[in-house]
Amino acid sequence: MLLGGIEAGGTKMVCALGDENGNLKERVSIPTREPEKCVPEMIDYFRGRGIQALGLATFGPADLNKNSPLYGHILKTPKPGWEGYDFAGAFRKELGVPVGFDTDVNGAILGEVTWGAAKGCSSAIYITVGTGIGVGVYVNGGLLHGLMHPEAGHILLARHPDDTAFAGGCPFHRNCAEGLAAGRAIELRWGQKGAALSDRKEVWELESYYLGQAIADYICTYSPEKIILWGGVMHQPQMFDLVREKTLEFLSGYFTQKQFTPEGMKDYITAPALGDNPGIMGALKLAAMQLAQEEN
Amino acid sequence: MLLGGIEAGGTKMVCALGDENGNLKERVSIPTREPEKCVPEMIDYFRGRGIQALGLATFGPADLNKNSPLYGHILKTPKPGWEGYDFAGAFRKELGVPVGFDTDVNGAILGEVTWGAAKGCSSAIYITVGTGIGVGVYVNGGLLHGLMHPEAGHILLARHPDDTAFAGGCPFHRNCAEGLAAGRAIELRWGQKGAALSDRKEVWELESYYLGQAIADYICTYSPEKIILWGGVMHQPQMFDLVREKTLEFLSGYFTQKQFTPEGMKDYITAPALGDNPGIMGALKLAAMQLAQEEN
Repeated sequence: MLLGGIEAGGTKMVCALGDENGNLKERVSIPTREPEKCVPEMIDYFRGRGIQALGLATFGPADLNKNSPLYGHILKTPKPGWEGYDFAGAFRKELGVPVGFDTDVNGAILGEVTWGAAKGCSSAIYITVGTGIGVGVYVNGGLLHGLMHPEAGHILLARHPDDTAFAGGCPFHRNCAEGLAAGRAIELRWGQKGAALSDRKEVWELESYYLGQAIADYICTYSPEKIILWGGVMHQPQMFDLVREKTLEFLSGYFTQKQFTPEGMKDYITAPALGDNPGIMGALKLAAMQLAQEEN
Repeated sequence: MLLGGIEAGGTKMVCALGDENGNLKERVSIPTREPEKCVPEMIDYFRGRGIQALGLATFGPADLNKNSPLYGHILKTPKPGWEGYDFAGAFRKELGVPVGFDTDVNGAILGEVTWGAAKGCSSAIYITVGTGIGVGVYVNGGLLHGLMHPEAGHILLARHPDDTAFAGGCPFHRNCAEGLAAGRAIELRWGQKGAALSDRKEVWELESYYLGQAIADYICTYSPEKIILWGGVMHQPQMFDLVREKTLEFLSGYFTQKQFTPEGMKDYITAPALGDNPGIMGALKLAAMQLAQEEN
Protein backbone atom coordinates (compact mmCIF):
# COMPACT_ATOMS: atom_id res chain seq x y z
CA MET A 1 0.00 0.00 0.00
CA LEU A 2 1.43 3.39 -0.95
CA LEU A 3 0.48 6.30 1.31
CA GLY A 4 1.40 9.97 1.44
CA GLY A 5 2.26 11.86 4.60
CA ILE A 6 2.71 15.55 5.33
CA GLU A 7 4.13 17.12 8.46
CA ALA A 8 3.23 20.78 8.08
CA GLY A 9 5.37 23.12 10.15
CA GLY A 10 5.94 26.84 10.38
CA THR A 11 9.21 26.74 8.44
CA LYS A 12 8.96 23.60 6.30
CA MET A 13 6.51 21.12 4.88
CA VAL A 14 7.86 17.58 5.04
CA CYS A 15 6.16 15.45 2.36
CA ALA A 16 6.81 11.72 2.26
CA LEU A 17 5.81 8.50 0.60
CA GLY A 18 5.52 5.38 2.72
CA ASP A 19 3.32 2.50 3.72
CA GLU A 20 0.89 1.39 6.40
CA ASN A 21 3.71 -0.07 8.48
CA GLY A 22 5.43 3.27 8.85
CA ASN A 23 8.14 2.55 6.29
CA LEU A 24 9.31 5.81 4.75
CA LYS A 25 10.29 5.35 1.11
CA GLU A 26 11.29 8.92 0.29
CA ARG A 27 10.73 12.46 1.46
CA VAL A 28 11.13 16.05 0.36
CA SER A 29 11.08 19.29 2.30
CA ILE A 30 9.27 22.32 0.88
CA PRO A 31 9.67 25.76 2.50
CA THR A 32 6.49 27.01 4.16
CA ARG A 33 5.09 30.14 2.53
CA GLU A 34 1.57 31.39 1.85
CA PRO A 35 -0.66 28.47 0.87
CA GLU A 36 -1.05 29.64 -2.76
CA LYS A 37 2.71 29.33 -3.11
CA CYS A 38 3.63 26.15 -1.27
CA VAL A 39 0.53 23.94 -1.49
CA PRO A 40 0.66 23.58 -5.32
CA GLU A 41 4.28 22.40 -4.98
CA MET A 42 3.21 19.85 -2.40
CA ILE A 43 0.37 18.63 -4.60
CA ASP A 44 2.76 18.32 -7.55
CA TYR A 45 5.01 16.13 -5.44
CA PHE A 46 2.23 13.62 -4.75
CA ARG A 47 0.40 13.80 -8.08
CA GLY A 48 0.72 10.74 -10.25
CA ARG A 49 2.61 8.76 -7.61
CA GLY A 50 -0.33 6.45 -6.98
CA ILE A 51 -0.92 7.10 -3.27
CA GLN A 52 -4.13 5.57 -1.94
CA ALA A 53 -4.56 8.10 0.86
CA LEU A 54 -2.83 11.09 2.41
CA GLY A 55 -2.27 11.99 6.07
CA LEU A 56 -1.83 15.63 6.99
CA ALA A 57 -0.40 16.50 10.43
CA THR A 58 -0.43 20.27 10.63
CA PHE A 59 0.44 23.28 12.76
CA GLY A 60 -2.65 24.69 14.45
CA PRO A 61 -5.08 25.92 15.25
CA ALA A 62 -7.07 23.62 12.99
CA ASP A 63 -10.68 22.46 12.83
CA LEU A 64 -10.67 18.70 13.49
CA ASN A 65 -14.41 18.31 13.96
CA LYS A 66 -15.70 16.15 11.12
CA ASN A 67 -19.19 17.58 11.57
CA SER A 68 -18.04 21.17 11.20
CA PRO A 69 -18.30 23.14 7.92
CA LEU A 70 -14.70 24.24 8.59
CA TYR A 71 -13.34 20.69 9.02
CA GLY A 72 -9.83 20.52 7.59
CA HIS A 73 -9.34 24.30 7.69
CA ILE A 74 -6.71 26.33 9.52
CA LEU A 75 -8.33 28.65 12.08
CA LYS A 76 -7.27 32.06 13.43
CA THR A 77 -3.52 32.42 12.92
CA PRO A 78 -0.99 35.19 12.32
CA LYS A 79 0.62 33.13 9.50
CA PRO A 80 0.00 35.17 6.31
CA GLY A 81 -2.66 33.66 4.08
CA TRP A 82 -3.40 30.64 6.25
CA GLU A 83 -6.36 31.82 8.33
CA GLY A 84 -9.49 30.05 7.09
CA TYR A 85 -7.56 28.07 4.47
CA ASP A 86 -9.06 24.67 3.56
CA PHE A 87 -5.81 22.75 3.94
CA ALA A 88 -7.17 19.19 3.84
CA GLY A 89 -9.71 20.11 1.15
CA ALA A 90 -7.00 21.36 -1.25
CA PHE A 91 -5.38 17.91 -1.33
CA ARG A 92 -8.64 16.02 -1.39
CA LYS A 93 -9.79 18.05 -4.40
CA GLU A 94 -6.56 17.83 -6.39
CA LEU A 95 -5.47 14.29 -5.55
CA GLY A 96 -8.90 12.66 -5.17
CA VAL A 97 -7.85 10.41 -2.29
CA PRO A 98 -8.97 10.20 1.38
CA VAL A 99 -7.15 12.77 3.52
CA GLY A 100 -6.61 12.12 7.24
CA PHE A 101 -6.24 15.39 9.13
CA ASP A 102 -4.93 16.19 12.60
CA THR A 103 -2.45 18.40 14.43
CA ASP A 104 1.32 17.95 14.12
CA VAL A 105 1.64 16.91 17.78
CA ASN A 106 -1.28 14.49 17.54
CA GLY A 107 0.48 13.03 14.50
CA ALA A 108 3.65 12.62 16.56
CA ILE A 109 1.97 10.85 19.47
CA LEU A 110 0.11 8.63 16.99
CA GLY A 111 3.45 7.64 15.44
CA GLU A 112 4.96 6.88 18.85
CA VAL A 113 1.90 4.95 20.06
CA THR A 114 1.81 2.89 16.85
CA TRP A 115 5.51 2.14 16.39
CA GLY A 116 7.58 3.92 19.02
CA ALA A 117 8.19 4.52 22.71
CA ALA A 118 4.48 4.44 23.63
CA LYS A 119 3.67 1.29 21.65
CA GLY A 120 0.90 -0.63 23.39
CA CYS A 121 -0.12 2.29 25.64
CA SER A 122 -3.79 3.20 25.81
CA SER A 123 -2.85 6.74 26.85
CA ALA A 124 0.27 8.78 26.22
CA ILE A 125 1.32 12.35 25.47
CA TYR A 126 3.94 13.89 23.19
CA ILE A 127 5.37 17.22 24.32
CA THR A 128 7.48 19.23 21.95
CA VAL A 129 9.48 22.14 23.33
CA GLY A 130 10.69 24.04 20.31
CA THR A 131 9.94 27.61 19.22
CA GLY A 132 6.60 27.02 20.96
CA ILE A 133 5.28 24.21 23.18
CA GLY A 134 2.79 21.72 21.77
CA VAL A 135 1.21 18.64 23.32
CA GLY A 136 -0.28 15.72 21.39
CA VAL A 137 -2.69 13.59 23.40
CA TYR A 138 -3.72 9.97 22.91
CA VAL A 139 -6.38 8.69 25.34
CA ASN A 140 -8.97 5.92 25.39
CA GLY A 141 -7.38 4.49 22.27
CA GLY A 142 -7.74 7.65 20.16
CA LEU A 143 -6.40 11.16 19.55
CA LEU A 144 -7.93 13.83 21.78
CA HIS A 145 -9.87 16.55 19.98
CA GLY A 146 -12.83 18.01 21.89
CA LEU A 147 -14.21 21.47 21.23
CA MET A 148 -11.07 22.20 19.18
CA HIS A 149 -7.90 20.37 20.17
CA PRO A 150 -5.72 20.57 23.26
CA GLU A 151 -3.58 23.68 23.50
CA ALA A 152 -1.79 22.41 26.55
CA GLY A 153 1.31 24.48 25.85
CA HIS A 154 -0.73 27.42 27.13
CA ILE A 155 -1.48 26.18 30.66
CA LEU A 156 -0.61 28.77 33.27
CA LEU A 157 2.38 28.26 35.53
CA ALA A 158 3.63 29.79 38.75
CA ARG A 159 6.69 31.97 38.26
CA HIS A 160 10.04 31.01 39.69
CA PRO A 161 10.79 33.54 42.48
CA ASP A 162 13.92 34.67 40.59
CA ASP A 163 12.06 35.16 37.29
CA THR A 164 9.46 37.78 38.12
CA ALA A 165 10.64 40.54 35.77
CA PHE A 166 10.61 38.66 32.43
CA ALA A 167 7.66 39.79 30.29
CA GLY A 168 7.14 36.32 28.81
CA GLY A 169 7.16 35.20 25.21
CA CYS A 170 3.45 34.56 24.59
CA PRO A 171 1.42 37.46 23.19
CA PHE A 172 -1.67 36.19 25.04
CA HIS A 173 -0.60 34.92 28.45
CA ARG A 174 2.04 36.45 30.67
CA ASN A 175 2.59 33.18 32.52
CA CYS A 176 1.85 30.23 30.26
CA ALA A 177 4.24 27.31 29.73
CA GLU A 178 4.99 28.35 26.15
CA GLY A 179 5.56 31.96 27.15
CA LEU A 180 7.94 31.00 29.96
CA ALA A 181 9.75 27.94 28.64
CA ALA A 182 9.61 27.59 24.84
CA GLY A 183 12.69 28.29 22.75
CA ARG A 184 11.40 31.77 21.95
CA ALA A 185 11.14 32.53 25.69
CA ILE A 186 14.69 31.33 26.30
CA GLU A 187 16.00 33.62 23.59
CA LEU A 188 13.99 36.61 24.83
CA ARG A 189 14.99 36.08 28.46
CA TRP A 190 18.71 35.40 28.00
CA GLY A 191 19.38 37.28 24.78
CA GLN A 192 20.72 34.22 22.98
CA LYS A 193 19.31 31.01 21.55
CA GLY A 194 19.36 27.99 23.84
CA ALA A 195 21.97 26.24 21.69
CA ALA A 196 24.48 28.99 22.62
CA LEU A 197 23.70 28.72 26.36
CA SER A 198 24.59 25.07 26.97
CA ASP A 199 27.10 25.80 29.73
CA ARG A 200 24.88 28.28 31.61
CA LYS A 201 23.59 26.10 34.45
CA GLU A 202 20.99 28.67 35.60
CA VAL A 203 19.30 28.63 32.17
CA TRP A 204 18.54 24.91 32.36
CA GLU A 205 17.65 24.94 36.04
CA LEU A 206 14.97 27.53 35.33
CA GLU A 207 13.88 25.77 32.15
CA SER A 208 13.41 22.46 33.97
CA TYR A 209 11.55 24.25 36.77
CA TYR A 210 8.88 25.30 34.26
CA LEU A 211 8.82 22.07 32.25
CA GLY A 212 8.65 19.97 35.43
CA GLN A 213 5.75 22.07 36.67
CA ALA A 214 3.91 21.76 33.34
CA ILE A 215 4.49 18.00 33.20
CA ALA A 216 3.21 17.58 36.78
CA ASP A 217 0.01 19.27 35.58
CA TYR A 218 -0.22 17.03 32.51
CA ILE A 219 0.17 13.99 34.77
CA CYS A 220 -2.66 15.24 37.01
CA THR A 221 -4.95 15.98 34.06
CA TYR A 222 -4.22 13.19 31.56
CA SER A 223 -2.84 10.41 33.80
CA PRO A 224 -0.68 9.26 30.85
CA GLU A 225 1.00 5.87 30.75
CA LYS A 226 3.97 7.40 28.93
CA ILE A 227 5.35 10.89 28.36
CA ILE A 228 7.42 11.56 25.25
CA LEU A 229 9.39 14.77 25.38
CA TRP A 230 11.21 16.31 22.44
CA GLY A 231 11.87 19.49 20.46
CA GLY A 232 14.96 21.64 20.06
CA VAL A 233 15.17 22.58 23.74
CA MET A 234 15.38 18.90 24.73
CA HIS A 235 18.51 18.44 22.61
CA GLN A 236 20.45 19.79 25.61
CA PRO A 237 21.72 16.48 27.02
CA GLN A 238 21.37 17.53 30.68
CA MET A 239 17.68 18.36 30.31
CA PHE A 240 16.02 14.95 30.59
CA ASP A 241 17.39 14.22 34.05
CA LEU A 242 16.69 17.77 35.24
CA VAL A 243 13.09 17.64 34.02
CA ARG A 244 12.48 14.21 35.58
CA GLU A 245 13.84 15.45 38.90
CA LYS A 246 11.77 18.64 38.90
CA THR A 247 8.61 16.78 37.87
CA LEU A 248 8.98 14.51 40.91
CA GLU A 249 9.57 17.54 43.13
CA PHE A 250 6.37 19.20 41.91
CA LEU A 251 4.34 16.00 42.34
CA SER A 252 5.58 15.86 45.97
CA GLY A 253 4.94 12.16 46.48
CA TYR A 254 1.25 12.34 45.64
CA PHE A 255 1.39 9.45 43.17
CA THR A 256 2.88 6.21 44.41
CA GLN A 257 3.14 4.04 41.29
CA LYS A 258 6.58 2.81 40.29
CA GLN A 259 6.71 5.40 37.49
CA PHE A 260 7.04 8.12 40.13
CA THR A 261 10.42 7.08 41.48
CA PRO A 262 13.76 8.40 40.18
CA GLU A 263 14.34 5.01 38.53
CA GLY A 264 10.82 4.74 37.08
CA MET A 265 11.00 8.28 35.70
CA LYS A 266 13.80 7.26 33.29
CA ASP A 267 11.36 5.10 31.41
CA TYR A 268 8.27 7.25 32.02
CA ILE A 269 9.55 10.54 30.56
CA THR A 270 11.53 9.66 27.47
CA ALA A 271 12.71 10.81 24.07
CA PRO A 272 10.82 9.53 21.02
CA ALA A 273 11.87 6.09 19.80
CA LEU A 274 11.30 7.18 16.20
CA GLY A 275 14.00 9.87 16.27
CA ASP A 276 12.91 12.84 14.18
CA ASN A 277 10.21 10.82 12.42
CA PRO A 278 7.24 10.44 14.81
CA GLY A 279 5.31 13.25 13.08
CA ILE A 280 5.78 12.10 9.51
CA MET A 281 5.24 8.44 10.44
CA GLY A 282 2.12 9.46 12.35
CA ALA A 283 0.94 11.20 9.18
CA LEU A 284 1.21 7.87 7.33
CA LYS A 285 -0.89 6.29 10.07
CA LEU A 286 -3.47 9.10 9.72
CA ALA A 287 -3.62 8.25 6.01
CA ALA A 288 -4.10 4.54 6.72
CA MET A 289 -6.81 5.23 9.32
CA GLN A 290 -8.72 7.57 7.00
CA LEU A 291 -8.52 5.04 4.17
CA ALA A 292 -9.86 2.26 6.41
CA GLN A 293 -12.67 4.52 7.59
CA GLU A 294 -13.76 5.53 4.09
CA GLU A 295 -13.61 1.92 2.89
CA ASN A 296 -16.08 0.86 5.60
CA MET B 1 -34.46 -3.58 34.01
CA LEU B 2 -33.59 -3.11 37.69
CA LEU B 3 -30.12 -1.79 38.45
CA GLY B 4 -28.27 -0.80 41.60
CA GLY B 5 -26.14 2.29 42.00
CA ILE B 6 -23.73 3.43 44.68
CA GLU B 7 -22.17 6.85 45.08
CA ALA B 8 -19.44 6.26 47.64
CA GLY B 9 -18.31 9.39 49.45
CA GLY B 10 -16.18 10.22 52.45
CA THR B 11 -19.15 10.82 54.74
CA LYS B 12 -21.97 8.79 53.22
CA MET B 13 -22.70 5.94 50.86
CA VAL B 14 -25.73 6.66 48.70
CA CYS B 15 -27.27 3.38 47.53
CA ALA B 16 -30.13 3.43 45.03
CA LEU B 17 -32.33 1.27 42.88
CA GLY B 18 -33.18 2.46 39.40
CA ASP B 19 -33.21 1.59 35.74
CA GLU B 20 -31.19 1.99 32.55
CA ASN B 21 -32.94 5.28 31.77
CA GLY B 22 -31.67 6.92 34.92
CA ASN B 23 -34.98 6.66 36.78
CA LEU B 24 -34.30 6.47 40.52
CA LYS B 25 -36.87 4.28 42.29
CA GLU B 26 -35.57 4.58 45.84
CA ARG B 27 -32.42 5.38 47.74
CA VAL B 28 -30.86 5.08 51.17
CA SER B 29 -27.87 6.77 52.72
CA ILE B 30 -25.46 4.76 54.86
CA PRO B 31 -22.76 6.51 56.93
CA THR B 32 -19.24 5.83 55.67
CA ARG B 33 -17.11 3.93 58.18
CA GLU B 34 -14.44 1.24 57.84
CA PRO B 35 -15.37 -1.16 55.04
CA GLU B 36 -16.04 -4.08 57.41
CA LYS B 37 -18.72 -1.97 59.06
CA CYS B 38 -20.50 -0.23 56.22
CA VAL B 39 -20.09 -2.54 53.21
CA PRO B 40 -22.14 -5.40 54.74
CA GLU B 41 -24.99 -2.91 55.35
CA MET B 42 -24.79 -1.83 51.72
CA ILE B 43 -24.81 -5.42 50.51
CA ASP B 44 -27.82 -6.17 52.72
CA TYR B 45 -29.67 -3.29 51.09
CA PHE B 46 -29.24 -4.73 47.60
CA ARG B 47 -29.50 -8.45 48.44
CA GLY B 48 -32.67 -10.14 47.25
CA ARG B 49 -33.89 -7.03 45.40
CA GLY B 50 -33.30 -8.62 42.00
CA ILE B 51 -30.84 -6.11 40.54
CA GLN B 52 -29.22 -7.27 37.28
CA ALA B 53 -26.06 -5.22 37.74
CA LEU B 54 -24.50 -2.69 40.09
CA GLY B 55 -22.61 0.53 39.35
CA LEU B 56 -20.11 1.79 41.92
CA ALA B 57 -18.87 5.40 41.65
CA THR B 58 -16.35 5.82 44.43
CA PHE B 59 -13.99 8.24 46.14
CA GLY B 60 -10.41 7.62 45.03
CA PRO B 61 -7.75 6.79 44.49
CA ALA B 62 -9.02 3.61 42.87
CA ASP B 63 -7.60 1.08 40.41
CA LEU B 64 -9.73 1.30 37.26
CA ASN B 65 -7.47 -0.76 35.03
CA LYS B 66 -9.35 -3.92 34.10
CA ASN B 67 -6.07 -5.72 33.39
CA SER B 68 -4.64 -4.98 36.84
CA PRO B 69 -4.71 -7.50 39.71
CA LEU B 70 -5.93 -4.60 41.88
CA TYR B 71 -8.84 -3.66 39.59
CA GLY B 72 -11.77 -2.51 41.72
CA HIS B 73 -9.60 -1.84 44.78
CA ILE B 74 -9.10 1.40 46.69
CA LEU B 75 -5.44 2.50 46.55
CA LYS B 76 -3.29 4.45 49.00
CA THR B 77 -5.60 6.50 51.23
CA PRO B 78 -5.66 7.87 54.78
CA LYS B 79 -9.26 6.59 55.22
CA PRO B 80 -9.02 3.92 57.96
CA GLY B 81 -9.36 0.38 56.62
CA TRP B 82 -9.85 1.36 52.97
CA GLU B 83 -6.32 1.13 51.59
CA GLY B 84 -6.08 -1.96 49.39
CA TYR B 85 -9.73 -2.87 49.93
CA ASP B 86 -11.41 -4.79 47.08
CA PHE B 87 -14.48 -2.56 46.94
CA ALA B 88 -15.98 -3.77 43.65
CA GLY B 89 -15.05 -7.38 44.43
CA ALA B 90 -17.01 -7.36 47.70
CA PHE B 91 -20.26 -6.66 45.85
CA ARG B 92 -19.49 -8.94 42.95
CA LYS B 93 -18.84 -11.82 45.36
CA GLU B 94 -21.88 -11.30 47.58
CA LEU B 95 -24.44 -10.23 44.98
CA GLY B 96 -23.21 -12.26 42.00
CA VAL B 97 -23.98 -9.54 39.45
CA PRO B 98 -21.77 -7.49 37.09
CA VAL B 99 -20.25 -4.50 38.90
CA GLY B 100 -19.31 -1.36 36.94
CA PHE B 101 -16.58 0.57 38.73
CA ASP B 102 -15.29 4.11 38.35
CA THR B 103 -14.57 7.27 40.33
CA ASP B 104 -17.32 9.42 41.85
CA VAL B 105 -16.53 12.34 39.52
CA ASN B 106 -16.38 10.10 36.46
CA GLY B 107 -19.79 8.80 37.54
CA ALA B 108 -21.07 12.38 37.73
CA ILE B 109 -19.84 13.38 34.27
CA LEU B 110 -21.24 10.12 32.86
CA GLY B 111 -24.64 11.00 34.34
CA GLU B 112 -24.53 14.51 32.88
CA VAL B 113 -23.32 13.32 29.46
CA THR B 114 -26.03 10.66 29.33
CA TRP B 115 -29.01 12.63 30.64
CA GLY B 116 -27.95 16.10 31.75
CA ALA B 117 -26.29 19.36 30.76
CA ALA B 118 -23.61 17.67 28.61
CA LYS B 119 -26.03 15.38 26.74
CA GLY B 120 -24.76 14.78 23.22
CA CYS B 121 -21.25 16.09 23.95
CA SER B 122 -18.32 13.93 22.91
CA SER B 123 -16.15 15.61 25.55
CA ALA B 124 -17.07 17.28 28.82
CA ILE B 125 -15.76 17.65 32.35
CA TYR B 126 -17.42 17.71 35.77
CA ILE B 127 -15.64 19.75 38.43
CA THR B 128 -16.74 19.45 42.03
CA VAL B 129 -15.49 22.03 44.52
CA GLY B 130 -16.38 20.63 47.91
CA THR B 131 -14.12 19.61 50.79
CA GLY B 132 -11.64 18.75 48.01
CA ILE B 133 -11.64 19.38 44.26
CA GLY B 134 -12.35 16.51 41.88
CA VAL B 135 -12.63 16.43 38.09
CA GLY B 136 -14.45 13.77 36.08
CA VAL B 137 -13.43 13.60 32.44
CA TYR B 138 -15.33 12.29 29.43
CA VAL B 139 -13.41 12.33 26.13
CA ASN B 140 -13.55 10.49 22.81
CA GLY B 141 -16.89 9.03 23.89
CA GLY B 142 -15.59 7.43 27.10
CA LEU B 143 -14.44 8.10 30.66
CA LEU B 144 -10.78 9.02 30.99
CA HIS B 145 -8.65 6.62 33.01
CA GLY B 146 -5.02 6.27 31.90
CA LEU B 147 -2.25 5.15 34.21
CA MET B 148 -4.64 5.65 37.14
CA HIS B 149 -7.32 8.32 36.72
CA PRO B 150 -7.13 12.09 36.45
CA GLU B 151 -6.34 13.90 39.70
CA ALA B 152 -6.89 17.27 38.12
CA GLY B 153 -7.77 18.90 41.43
CA HIS B 154 -4.04 18.78 42.16
CA ILE B 155 -2.80 20.89 39.24
CA LEU B 156 -0.48 23.64 40.41
CA LEU B 157 -1.63 27.26 40.33
CA ALA B 158 0.04 30.64 40.59
CA ARG B 159 -0.67 32.41 43.87
CA HIS B 160 -2.69 35.55 43.99
CA PRO B 161 -0.27 38.36 44.96
CA ASP B 162 -2.33 39.03 48.12
CA ASP B 163 -2.38 35.37 49.17
CA THR B 164 1.28 34.53 49.61
CA ALA B 165 1.27 33.70 53.34
CA PHE B 166 -1.43 31.00 53.42
CA ALA B 167 0.13 27.55 53.95
CA GLY B 168 -2.45 25.82 51.74
CA GLY B 169 -4.82 23.00 52.55
CA CYS B 170 -3.22 20.09 50.67
CA PRO B 171 -0.74 17.95 52.61
CA PHE B 172 1.21 17.26 49.39
CA HIS B 173 1.26 20.44 47.33
CA ARG B 174 1.64 23.96 48.67
CA ASN B 175 0.03 25.47 45.57
CA CYS B 176 -2.43 23.04 44.03
CA ALA B 177 -6.02 23.95 43.13
CA GLU B 178 -7.45 21.78 45.91
CA GLY B 179 -5.02 23.20 48.47
CA LEU B 180 -5.84 26.79 47.52
CA ALA B 181 -9.51 26.71 46.62
CA ALA B 182 -11.38 23.69 48.04
CA GLY B 183 -13.78 24.13 50.95
CA ARG B 184 -11.11 22.97 53.38
CA ALA B 185 -8.76 25.69 52.11
CA ILE B 186 -11.45 28.36 52.52
CA GLU B 187 -12.02 27.31 56.12
CA LEU B 188 -8.30 27.21 56.91
CA ARG B 189 -7.61 30.57 55.30
CA TRP B 190 -10.55 32.56 56.66
CA GLY B 191 -11.22 30.67 59.89
CA GLN B 192 -14.83 29.92 58.99
CA LYS B 193 -16.67 27.67 56.57
CA GLY B 194 -17.60 29.21 53.22
CA ALA B 195 -21.30 29.12 54.06
CA ALA B 196 -20.67 31.65 56.86
CA LEU B 197 -18.67 33.97 54.59
CA SER B 198 -21.28 34.74 51.92
CA ASP B 199 -21.09 38.52 52.34
CA ARG B 200 -17.28 38.72 52.37
CA LYS B 201 -16.59 39.89 48.80
CA GLU B 202 -12.82 39.30 49.04
CA VAL B 203 -13.37 35.60 49.85
CA TRP B 204 -15.20 34.97 46.58
CA GLU B 205 -12.97 37.20 44.50
CA LEU B 206 -9.97 35.14 45.60
CA GLU B 207 -11.88 31.87 45.21
CA SER B 208 -12.89 32.69 41.65
CA TYR B 209 -9.31 33.77 40.87
CA TYR B 210 -8.13 30.23 41.62
CA LEU B 211 -11.07 28.41 40.06
CA GLY B 212 -10.87 30.55 36.91
CA GLN B 213 -7.17 29.80 36.63
CA ALA B 214 -7.74 26.05 37.08
CA ILE B 215 -10.58 26.02 34.54
CA ALA B 216 -8.44 27.90 32.00
CA ASP B 217 -5.91 25.07 32.38
CA TYR B 218 -8.61 22.40 31.98
CA ILE B 219 -9.78 24.13 28.80
CA CYS B 220 -6.21 24.11 27.43
CA THR B 221 -5.64 20.45 28.32
CA TYR B 222 -9.03 18.80 27.67
CA SER B 223 -10.65 21.17 25.15
CA PRO B 224 -14.06 20.23 26.63
CA GLU B 225 -17.32 20.97 24.84
CA LYS B 226 -19.00 21.61 28.19
CA ILE B 227 -17.87 22.32 31.75
CA ILE B 228 -20.12 21.34 34.62
CA LEU B 229 -19.24 22.96 37.91
CA TRP B 230 -20.71 21.99 41.25
CA GLY B 231 -19.98 21.16 44.90
CA GLY B 232 -20.69 23.01 48.14
CA VAL B 233 -18.54 26.02 47.25
CA MET B 234 -20.58 26.63 44.08
CA HIS B 235 -23.77 26.98 46.13
CA GLN B 236 -22.74 30.62 46.64
CA PRO B 237 -25.00 32.26 44.05
CA GLN B 238 -22.47 34.91 43.01
CA MET B 239 -19.82 32.33 42.15
CA PHE B 240 -20.84 31.20 38.66
CA ASP B 241 -20.58 34.66 37.12
CA LEU B 242 -17.34 35.40 38.96
CA VAL B 243 -15.75 32.15 37.80
CA ARG B 244 -16.86 32.68 34.20
CA GLU B 245 -15.40 36.18 34.21
CA LYS B 246 -12.08 35.09 35.72
CA THR B 247 -11.79 32.14 33.33
CA LEU B 248 -12.09 34.51 30.37
CA GLU B 249 -9.50 36.83 31.93
CA PHE B 250 -7.02 33.97 32.31
CA LEU B 251 -7.62 32.74 28.75
CA SER B 252 -6.82 36.29 27.53
CA GLY B 253 -8.57 35.97 24.19
CA TYR B 254 -6.55 32.97 23.03
CA PHE B 255 -9.62 30.95 22.04
CA THR B 256 -12.07 32.61 19.66
CA GLN B 257 -15.03 30.21 19.55
CA LYS B 258 -18.38 31.58 20.65
CA GLN B 259 -18.10 29.74 23.97
CA PHE B 260 -15.35 32.16 24.98
CA THR B 261 -17.49 35.28 25.09
CA PRO B 262 -19.30 36.55 28.22
CA GLU B 263 -22.58 35.39 26.67
CA GLY B 264 -21.24 32.01 25.52
CA MET B 265 -19.71 31.35 28.94
CA LYS B 266 -23.16 31.22 30.54
CA ASP B 267 -23.92 28.05 28.65
CA TYR B 268 -20.35 26.71 28.60
CA ILE B 269 -19.69 26.68 32.36
CA THR B 270 -22.87 25.52 34.00
CA ALA B 271 -24.42 23.78 36.99
CA PRO B 272 -25.46 20.13 36.57
CA ALA B 273 -28.87 19.61 34.98
CA LEU B 274 -29.45 16.58 37.21
CA GLY B 275 -29.35 18.58 40.46
CA ASP B 276 -27.73 16.51 43.19
CA ASN B 277 -28.15 13.29 41.22
CA PRO B 278 -25.48 13.17 38.48
CA GLY B 279 -23.29 10.83 40.55
CA ILE B 280 -25.93 8.33 41.52
CA MET B 281 -27.52 8.40 38.06
CA GLY B 282 -24.07 7.94 36.55
CA ALA B 283 -23.69 4.90 38.80
CA LEU B 284 -26.83 3.41 37.21
CA LYS B 285 -25.28 4.03 33.79
CA LEU B 286 -22.06 2.32 34.93
CA ALA B 287 -24.19 -0.67 35.91
CA ALA B 288 -25.96 -0.74 32.54
CA MET B 289 -22.66 -0.42 30.65
CA GLN B 290 -21.04 -3.23 32.62
CA LEU B 291 -24.06 -5.47 32.08
CA ALA B 292 -24.00 -4.82 28.32
CA GLN B 293 -20.28 -5.55 28.23
CA GLU B 294 -20.54 -8.86 30.10
CA GLU B 295 -23.49 -9.95 27.96
CA ASN B 296 -21.39 -9.56 24.80
